[in-house]
Amino acid sequence: MAQDGRTRQQRAVATRAAIIDAAAGEFDEHGYLGTSMDAVAERAGLTKGALYFHFTSKADLAGAVIARQHEVSRQYGEAAATRGTTPLEVLMWMSQGLASQMIHEVVVSAGIRLSTDTAAAGVARRNPYTDWMQVAAELVRQGIEAGEIDSAWDPQLIGRVVVPAYTGAQTVSDVLADRADLYDRLRELWTVLLAAIVTDRMRPEIPRLVALIAPLATED
Amino acid sequence: MAQDGRTRQQRAVATRAAIIDAAAGEFDEHGYLGTSMDAVAERAGLTKGALYFHFTSKADLAGAVIARQHEVSRQYGEAAATRGTTPLEVLMWMSQGLASQMIHEVVVSAGIRLSTDTAAAGVARRNPYTDWMQVAAELVRQGIEAGEIDSAWDPQLIGRVVVPAYTGAQTVSDVLADRADLYDRLRELWTVLLAAIVTDRMRPEIPRLVALIAPLATED
Repeated sequence: MAQDGRTRQQRAVATRAAIIDAAAGEFDEHGYLGTSMDAVAERAGLTKGALYFHFTSKADLAGAVIARQHEVSRQYGEAAATRGTTPLEVLMWMSQGLASQMIHEVVVSAGIRLSTDTAAAGVARRNPYTDWMQVAAELVRQGIEAGEIDSAWDPQLIGRVVVPAYTGAQTVSDVLADRADLYDRLRELWTVLLAAIVTDRMRPEIPRLVALIAPLATED
Repeated sequence: MAQDGRTRQQRAVATRAAIIDAAAGEFDEHGYLGTSMDAVAERAGLTKGALYFHFTSKADLAGAVIARQHEVSRQYGEAAATRGTTPLEVLMWMSQGLASQMIHEVVVSAGIRLSTDTAAAGVARRNPYTDWMQVAAELVRQGIEAGEIDSAWDPQLIGRVVVPAYTGAQTVSDVLADRADLYDRLRELWTVLLAAIVTDRMRPEIPRLVALIAPLATED
């Protein structure tokens, strides 16, 4: 009995994950308004009844895609953190990781698109922005402690500036070049942002730091 | 005869403008996918046939809203240019003007929303970004000449960074605060961007410059 119960629960978890993947594909291709519950059910190979058992509305589903995207991004962020040996390196690796994921992971691409989609105004989507602002602010705080970032800066202010600037770089890269120049745009953005915030001893390091924002050798 | 002809043409121009206004209202409220030609015709008080006489598709209409928004923004930009007495002041006044328009002019709000709407991928919308990058780059070039901006910077690079950063600030302000904090976000953004690019003699002027980005006394 207990094992049956667990198996059923595991199956439900797997179905839920498959639905989120299918929904991500639809949202990524057709935007929020262009996606229907019918299309998601069909893509996931489920009846509409089975879909509604897991998600009661499209807004609910979009919220789950954004939450999943944020979870995937956070995991990658933690992995990125282990690549960097200083706060600024970690910040660069996180930028690299987010860009890489945006290009390669449909759930990330879909989550980011939903997060900037006017039509998705009713969807829960504020947390990713405010969470990343906190992450960036914390790294800036560490950067100040490590003597990499000028202590005159308020870490919270830098967090509030960096996250929207990053968001805009990916939006404009999407509109102008289908994200083909995303790494270039991010390296240019960080070249300017770092020039504003680093201490004099870190200034010569800016080209080395921004060069970390590039496709990994393992990427196509 | 000639006079009749002109009258008919003037009427056509007025109808076209009324359609663009109606479309802007619909796009602003419902996004690209959520807007129908029927709703635009109804809002403009026209038959669908009359609407199609002027615009052959929704993408055509969205392109016209973006073009009109860009025209309005450029006009305001030129007016803003006359308020500033130095290149950096002009850059700040332009930022103020764009923010003010985004809040007060439906066609601008709608145009910007269409310009960042994933669902509007088929719509002509690259020009506003590339045009503003050129405008910003030209002001940076003038700022270098005037000794306000460090000559080590490539004006084109700064243009490519500033415009997406500005775009992202408005997107995030829209998502997090319905644009209520747009001026605050822009002042913070420029505090960082100016710190990166100004010459040492202009550094003490940064607070005065960013303070120009605020609601005008004539605004509500």
